[in-house]
Amino acid sequence: MGATEPQWVLMATGRSPTNIAVIKYWGKRDEALILPVNDSISVTLDPDHLSATTTVAASPAFPSDRMWLNGKEISLSGGRFQSCLREIRKRARDVDDEKKGIKIKKEDWEKLHVHIASYNNFPTAAGLASSAAGLACLVFTLGKLMNVNEDYGELSSIARQGSGSACRSIYGGFVKWCMGKNDDGSDSMAVQLVNESHWDDLVIIIAVVSSKQKETSSTSGMRDTVETSPLLQYRAQTVVPSRILKMEDAIKNRDFESFARLTCADSNQFHAVCLDTSPPIFYMNDTSHRIISLVEKWNHSEGTPQVAYTFDAGPNAVLIARNRKTATLLLQRLLYTFPPQENDLDSYMLGDKSILSDAGLQSIADVEALPAPPEMKAPNQKFKGDVSYFICSRPGAGPKVLTDEGHALIDSATGLAKGV
Amino acid sequence: MGATEPQWVLMATGRSPTNIAVIKYWGKRDEALILPVNDSISVTLDPDHLSATTTVAASPAFPSDRMWLNGKEISLSGGRFQSCLREIRKRARDVDDEKKGIKIKKEDWEKLHVHIASYNNFPTAAGLASSAAGLACLVFTLGKLMNVNEDYGELSSIARQGSGSACRSIYGGFVKWCMGKNDDGSDSMAVQLVNESHWDDLVIIIAVVSSKQKETSSTSGMRDTVETSPLLQYRAQTVVPSRILKMEDAIKNRDFESFARLTCADSNQFHAVCLDTSPPIFYMNDTSHRIISLVEKWNHSEGTPQVAYTFDAGPNAVLIARNRKTATLLLQRLLYTFPPQENDLDSYMLGDKSILSDAGLQSIADVEALPAPPEMKAPNQKFKGDVSYFICSRPGAGPKVLTDEGHALIDSATGLAKGV
Repeated sequence: MGATEPQWVLMATGRSPTNIAVIKYWGKRDEALILPVNDSISVTLDPDHLSATTTVAASPAFPSDRMWLNGKEISLSGGRFQSCLREIRKRARDVDDEKKGIKIKKEDWEKLHVHIASYNNFPTAAGLASSAAGLACLVFTLGKLMNVNEDYGELSSIARQGSGSACRSIYGGFVKWCMGKNDDGSDSMAVQLVNESHWDDLVIIIAVVSSKQKETSSTSGMRDTVETSPLLQYRAQTVVPSRILKMEDAIKNRDFESFARLTCADSNQFHAVCLDTSPPIFYMNDTSHRIISLVEKWNHSEGTPQVAYTFDAGPNAVLIARNRKTATLLLQRLLYTFPPQENDLDSYMLGDKSILSDAGLQSIADVEALPAPPEMKAPNQKFKGDVSYFICSRPGAGPKVLTDEGHALIDSATGLAKGV
Repeated sequence: MGATEPQWVLMATGRSPTNIAVIKYWGKRDEALILPVNDSISVTLDPDHLSATTTVAASPAFPSDRMWLNGKEISLSGGRFQSCLREIRKRARDVDDEKKGIKIKKEDWEKLHVHIASYNNFPTAAGLASSAAGLACLVFTLGKLMNVNEDYGELSSIARQGSGSACRSIYGGFVKWCMGKNDDGSDSMAVQLVNESHWDDLVIIIAVVSSKQKETSSTSGMRDTVETSPLLQYRAQTVVPSRILKMEDAIKNRDFESFARLTCADSNQFHAVCLDTSPPIFYMNDTSHRIISLVEKWNHSEGTPQVAYTFDAGPNAVLIARNRKTATLLLQRLLYTFPPQENDLDSYMLGDKSILSDAGLQSIADVEALPAPPEMKAPNQKFKGDVSYFICSRPGAGPKVLTDEGHALIDSATGLAKGV
């Protein structure tokens, strides 16, 4: 912290999950406030497998706001970070930390600078909604530090201004982002539909697909779609509203068949409006198509959906199996078709690795011995190397404070990100 | 012809072009009559490069209708063939061939059986609208044989019942298929917008893309889309009608910029509604995407479109260049990115091969020496083997009779397909 010794450093550390939309958000009606053209619904992923951890620190010794992401300092000057900081500071309240003997008055927060360090427990660039987890975590943890009133709806609305889908990472379970009607965005916020224990037999397997293609960022992609796709407004105004109602029912009733049909159809329609954009946007590649085909064939052969698929702004597949047994059957099919490039099963399955033994796959030999799935017509087609790795997860809880100081990403002595 | 010697064999041979839609036909409102949910517009390809040749023969010695396609006998029992045969027979008139001394009365045609032999001068299975050329040729040539009144609108309406898009192959140049309003399909027929000389500086390059994937047939694909895509009706009722008007203007005015924008947007929207189908239909693959990206980048760098792309129910790209010069620049870009697998340029470029020398590409060494196109950001990306071959063509003429008997595909002595 340079020449001046800090009087004190006050810190808070939080962890926020990422989330995957099952009814997609694509298109803003207001770019600055990040107001969407339709409601969306997501499932929050278990933070043990996919989450951001963020430490925020305030000290009178900090001359400016600073931030580190995965150990590397990044600029905080972007409008989105600034919106979140501004909105949380506005709502800051008196803090009285008796243990540390720190007293901060509400009005002092405007003058105090913050240091932020954030870390994702999954690859940031893999297209797994890292910004949703990161911005939700920033807002949640800043709120804790500054003793902001625990109004989750309001927090979600602030996170929304950092990254649209971040508003849904403020809760666990299934979450709905209500688009709202107000021009100022005050009613565009997320609500929890059900918590993570409501439908806890779902298993989520993510296939991280190898891609050499540079992808269109979702910010510019959705702007192009809004400006050029003749189909988007029809989707937003006519198709999605009825899907939202059906999806809420499906989730409430744990009706997997409806849930799967709606999830797959909405993922495909999101990619359809991307394709209807000029120039067209392709997020899925041949590997994504093969995974869809694998799931569709299996679902068809079973007569009723066993697995739902959904793809965000990239080629990775998020596969939601109706239960653990189904997930093991899915995994056998996936590993039959996409065996690991390296002969190492352990690094090929991240997250809940116990799914491997449940599927009877303890070694590469087990994978090689897998029989062709009966519904497959061309059983010799294998695509080694087309999937980088899998992550096994499940619906999970919302943000929480990590009270153990060992989790802090900022060194309270230096005020800087640890290990920098 | 077995035991009975024929009294006579009367023959006619015709050639019909294939066509590529620039405003797409996708979805029927009547499956049996093949009535579409929207108008479509196509360009007819030069029959020298892509066409069907068909010989039809009638003889009192033929005990049944028979057909050979590319030398192999195929069944004529399908409803579509039967519709065409029935409709043409209905309109048959007296024939008086003085040279051969053959007289056939109008009412005799109902009792006379026909033999049909058809041949495509391009790969049938390559997804190049072979059924459009084939059915148009069948109807056109049967009409000649049976002295049917030369009402091209009516012929197109009959060809439509064989294969929807075949109705557009009845004319050269640019052709519009008017969907019509009548339940009996009587007003669902094609009209010529302009003939092939109206816009004769266009050059058409087709990239036949290697594909291991089994494709969804367009018949079942469009049925699934009609039944399951929430976006199709909006496209058909709201988007296409205004595009048709704009496309007619663009063609009339030879306005390449509008033509290209509409063509690309409509191809992409057709593939978007395929993706919006349940289960989703993917006709384009990674190679198709790469070709689109190559064209979009170049068009963008030039500030105004140089090339339009359109994809039918398969991964092949149909690229329409504004003129010969542009086509050579396009070809350089295509061959830079997709060099031939075999070191043989001659078998890599079919159709109008002279485009190769115009592009300065006389040998594989010339291809290897091609510099990276300046607009390319990742100039090292080459995809050898991803394109099977190219065909260079141009807008072409409609069906015609081949009077030279050397073109006949049926042996007048045996009444059977030649070489069988």
